[in-house]
Amino acid sequence: MRIALIAPPWYTIPPSGYGGIEWVVALLADGLSERGHEVTLFAAPGSDTRARLVSPLDEEPLSEAIGDPWYEASHIVSVYEHGDQFDILHDHARPVGVSVGALSNLPTIHTLHGPFTQQTLMLYRRVARQHWFVAISESQRSMAPPDLRWAGVVYNGILMESYPFRQEKDDYLFFLGRADEEKAPHLAIQAARRAGRRLVMCATTKNERERSYWAANVEPILGDDVTVFGECAPDQKADLLGRAAALLFPIQWAEPFGLVMTEAMACGTPVVAWRNGSVPEVVADGETGFVVESVDEMAAAIDRVGELDPHLMRSRVEERFSAEAMVSGYERAYEFALAGERAAAD
Amino acid sequence: MRIALIAPPWYTIPPSGYGGIEWVVALLADGLSERGHEVTLFAAPGSDTRARLVSPLDEEPLSEAIGDPWYEASHIVSVYEHGDQFDILHDHARPVGVSVGALSNLPTIHTLHGPFTQQTLMLYRRVARQHWFVAISESQRSMAPPDLRWAGVVYNGILMESYPFRQEKDDYLFFLGRADEEKAPHLAIQAARRAGRRLVMCATTKNERERSYWAANVEPILGDDVTVFGECAPDQKADLLGRAAALLFPIQWAEPFGLVMTEAMACGTPVVAWRNGSVPEVVADGETGFVVESVDEMAAAIDRVGELDPHLMRSRVEERFSAEAMVSGYERAYEFALAGERAAAD
Repeated sequence: MRIALIAPPWYTIPPSGYGGIEWVVALLADGLSERGHEVTLFAAPGSDTRARLVSPLDEEPLSEAIGDPWYEASHIVSVYEHGDQFDILHDHARPVGVSVGALSNLPTIHTLHGPFTQQTLMLYRRVARQHWFVAISESQRSMAPPDLRWAGVVYNGILMESYPFRQEKDDYLFFLGRADEEKAPHLAIQAARRAGRRLVMCATTKNERERSYWAANVEPILGDDVTVFGECAPDQKADLLGRAAALLFPIQWAEPFGLVMTEAMACGTPVVAWRNGSVPEVVADGETGFVVESVDEMAAAIDRVGELDPHLMRSRVEERFSAEAMVSGYERAYEFALAGERAAAD
Repeated sequence: MRIALIAPPWYTIPPSGYGGIEWVVALLADGLSERGHEVTLFAAPGSDTRARLVSPLDEEPLSEAIGDPWYEASHIVSVYEHGDQFDILHDHARPVGVSVGALSNLPTIHTLHGPFTQQTLMLYRRVARQHWFVAISESQRSMAPPDLRWAGVVYNGILMESYPFRQEKDDYLFFLGRADEEKAPHLAIQAARRAGRRLVMCATTKNERERSYWAANVEPILGDDVTVFGECAPDQKADLLGRAAALLFPIQWAEPFGLVMTEAMACGTPVVAWRNGSVPEVVADGETGFVVESVDEMAAAIDRVGELDPHLMRSRVEERFSAEAMVSGYERAYEFALAGERAAAD
């Protein structure tokens, strides 16, 4: 299949720092290429991929330009100029990518990477039948506008070798994420303390909102039983995840997909997570972790994580949340969309 | 001709307050409709026009949403969905409008309303042959990328009846505009003072940059010979313009078009303006005003404005810078573009 993968123009593929969408695109470009597809990746200059790389912009935009629609527009028109060279165009950019793709006559797939907001819903409703859409979880799909033309649900995948399996665990619990009301590290502290266990946190505070959340809700309840790191490097993250007795994931909003849960389980580390968004799909309750709805339930679940089998966790991630599973999922989505296009043309 | 006029989605047509592009679109929609064209105006809800109005957005975006590409995208996809109902689409939106229009197969004209920046040049270069472009002055066209496919130069027009002619003048000079280094009210004060004349100013300071410019460069040189108003209402503006002995326009950048010069001349008020951007095209030097290059030259020109014939000013505006002239200019541009499309199709 001749596939165009359209990354957002802001960061290299893979990204040097943060960048969830960029990692998905990186693994997909490599994985589809390895399976023999003819893949062209449209991405920021400096990207590194097994696909054929085309970089429409001369240079990676400066950080103050991120989100500037003039850059996205320049990136996107350069892609669609050559659109008829492909069997399918798989778009990860927004909102210029969504618009141009929807109005072109080419077969386009758009992955819904973000949560739905008033602005994004307004546009997605208008182009509901003009893309083939992929949701990144059943939960996200259930919150979408009713008329979207679906090509499927494909979970974000991870590179298994970056998250080595580890049978033996230390005694600490682990939290990783932004410090804010949605990721709720204060609930992780409360639950760990109630269970009488040590907590290690990699928590980031990148803006004023996160810093004031931290000062008001986390700082006052820190103690000897909590060790705090800031943002951790990839190796450190895999090591801390692998040695943890469990990952605590007290998510307080309907996040479309929580990647860190899959990273933990890949290492054989169980996940105790709040019932919200994709959580019940990602964590097999009572098998790869526990799905809870209160700090008390989280504390009680922590007492039971030793009962679970780490091997089961890794094999479930391999099967459902690995890069390979994601690549297979997108192959199916492409085939579904192209069959739909053929049916419509008949 | 079946014409789609695509306004930006941010303000009603005509605008209730500031909005240069919106006034151009308003006069064009009314003028083309009066000449018998079948005009559909895509614009914010609440717009008032003689054309058929279609408002893709449910409501006028809040001020904090202005520029948000999700809104522009929703507006634009709703236009191009019905694009084949028109002989030509005339686009005033950017950058989503530029991108979608450039990649559609429909005949599109794009008016270049703004100055060229690194970001806008990047996109215009890529779509150089995919729109028919209209510049709003020869000066603007001379600064454009070399390969743009032109449909012509059309000056912005004004409604003559909003600027009544007035033969008798008071003795004051007039300045109207933003208070910043580019509009340079401090140079107007210096020139008026050197000529020994009173100056009346309608100067606006809407942001921090303009307020600090004012405090540093204008406030210290104010005196009894300068009367300062803030933003003036349309009626007050026409009255102050009409009674002034001359408009001072010491513009310090290559502004694509300076509308206030045409408003002054419509009232029969001569313009003393700095040689920059569209100035030498708009002011007929020695006939409808003077084109100068220094404060000394401006002061010397002020002494001579009484020699000029106010009737000539008004008739020149009628001929070149009125709404009627603009409507005729766009009719020619549409015909030129459609002839080009037909030639390319043969």
